[in-house]
Amino acid sequence: MFTPRDPGFAARVEASFGRQAFMGHLGVNLAHVAAGEVDLVVPFHEALTQQHGYFHAGVTATVADSAAGYAALSLFAPGTGILTTEFKINLLAPARGQRLVARGRAIKAGRTLTVCRSDVAAVRDGAETLIATGLFTLMQVEGLED
Amino acid sequence: MFTPRDPGFAARVEASFGRQAFMGHLGVNLAHVAAGEVDLVVPFHEALTQQHGYFHAGVTATVADSAAGYAALSLFAPGTGILTTEFKINLLAPARGQRLVARGRAIKAGRTLTVCRSDVAAVRDGAETLIATGLFTLMQVEGLED
Amino acid sequence: MFTPRDPGFAARVEASFGRQAFMGHLGVNLAHVAAGEVDLVVPFHEALTQQHGYFHAGVTATVADSAAGYAALSLFAPGTGILTTEFKINLLAPARGQRLVARGRAIKAGRTLTVCRSDVAAVRDGAETLIATGLFTLMQVEGLED
Amino acid sequence: MFTPRDPGFAARVEASFGRQAFMGHLGVNLAHVAAGEVDLVVPFHEALTQQHGYFHAGVTATVADSAAGYAALSLFAPGTGILTTEFKINLLAPARGQRLVARGRAIKAGRTLTVCRSDVAAVRDGAETLIATGLFTLMQVEGLED
Repeated sequence: MFTPRDPGFAARVEASFGRQAFMGHLGVNLAHVAAGEVDLVVPFHEALTQQHGYFHAGVTATVADSAAGYAALSLFAPGTGILTTEFKINLLAPARGQRLVARGRAIKAGRTLTVCRSDVAAVRDGAETLIATGLFTLMQVEGLED
Repeated sequence: MFTPRDPGFAARVEASFGRQAFMGHLGVNLAHVAAGEVDLVVPFHEALTQQHGYFHAGVTATVADSAAGYAALSLFAPGTGILTTEFKINLLAPARGQRLVARGRAIKAGRTLTVCRSDVAAVRDGAETLIATGLFTLMQVEGLED
Repeated sequence: MFTPRDPGFAARVEASFGRQAFMGHLGVNLAHVAAGEVDLVVPFHEALTQQHGYFHAGVTATVADSAAGYAALSLFAPGTGILTTEFKINLLAPARGQRLVARGRAIKAGRTLTVCRSDVAAVRDGAETLIATGLFTLMQVEGLED
Repeated sequence: MFTPRDPGFAARVEASFGRQAFMGHLGVNLAHVAAGEVDLVVPFHEALTQQHGYFHAGVTATVADSAAGYAALSLFAPGTGILTTEFKINLLAPARGQRLVARGRAIKAGRTLTVCRSDVAAVRDGAETLIATGLFTLMQVEGLED
């Protein structure tokens, strides 16, 4: 649905993702990259929990934001960088499961601003539950290498 | 400005904070607890960075959310738990510095829902820059121990 | 997809909508009511414009909010009322056309809180453009008649 | 706190406000203009109500958005226009009173994006109640006259 301005967008997303130390610290993996679409997966680990033993809302927000950001970056012109300018997330159910899957999808790709949706599901014994949905605004920045 | 319903609110906030493994994984410290007010501090660490070496937006969002959540929990009745139902954050400047300070403050304490603001500053060579501000809705939940 | 708790939900939505004087002041019509789904339409009128002659963002937000609110009310128990507790909207394109169509859809129906998405399209010479998308939290309130 | 880039900012805000037909349709008045600050007032009228006779949430959101937008416009360069790109609002209490006062204040003025907060109070028998608070992102647009 979206035409990338950079044919090498997938390699660019992978390289930038690889430089985000925080993704490694949380154990997040890049699971899917297409034009305007990125999925991230984070397996459960006790280090990622809140006081009831579920994934912390900060983990949910982080993977939702990163999936949205890379979905937007996939549509940006080569040699430009990305900033999240704002986001909003609704937490719909406890983040309980063996892993979280965040699916970032571009809704509107503008010259300066790109708006993405990101849905996060918890996978528990093979069944998916939608646990969060959010809206993200990403800005294309000249002179910033990503 | 807010009267806590639980005189032991500070101990309750500290105990719940201590059970959040994710706070330990990020190196977050509880710096200030009062009725409707909680400050958190996270020192810089390479594991917390995005691709340009600044704090990842997920870290900023996580400490903003936790500060808001504990500011709300400080006003809840004893024996009740807390859920973040949604939040929105605007990222105002690069999260660059030796540490982040998140200041959660209750704006409106309702029977079911409490709304908090959370401001995040980056401290660099002793100077503070406001890098994010957000609005958070927290729900008091019966039969959930925090 | 959603099972209404009140078989008379459509009549209840219509009656409440009819009591919102502001809907009449803007010329908004109820175009579709199903369980968890409400569409509203507002024809263009000069009184609804901003400084460039397009629909004012306040009109877009109002119809998005009302569509989401009635989508949620359709799922509430009889004899309960509704409050919008918060919402977030991204404005994606100029609101230029002969009418706006707001489509409110429930995403998650909880005991206390229901989360809806609302998309707003501008219709111009028969073609639809998505001009806004938002997320809305609605609270079911006991002892409030809607 | 903010230095306007256009010394004639107040006249520009007033002229643009005067061209918004929707402000006249709701009976909104411009009550205060300074660099990065705009207050709007809307007196109660039955045409502005929801089903319980209070101000409709759409009115609250509209005046909050317009106050934020003009607070941002006051800081923009001459000859540039403004777009609200997104906003989020928390509704804190019923909008019940003889009038609403919306106070838009710039938080961060960037080259492209400006972030504002807007608080809305209901005034009832001389007493103010905070009924809503929101965050707004406004974009400065070249080649658009406001």
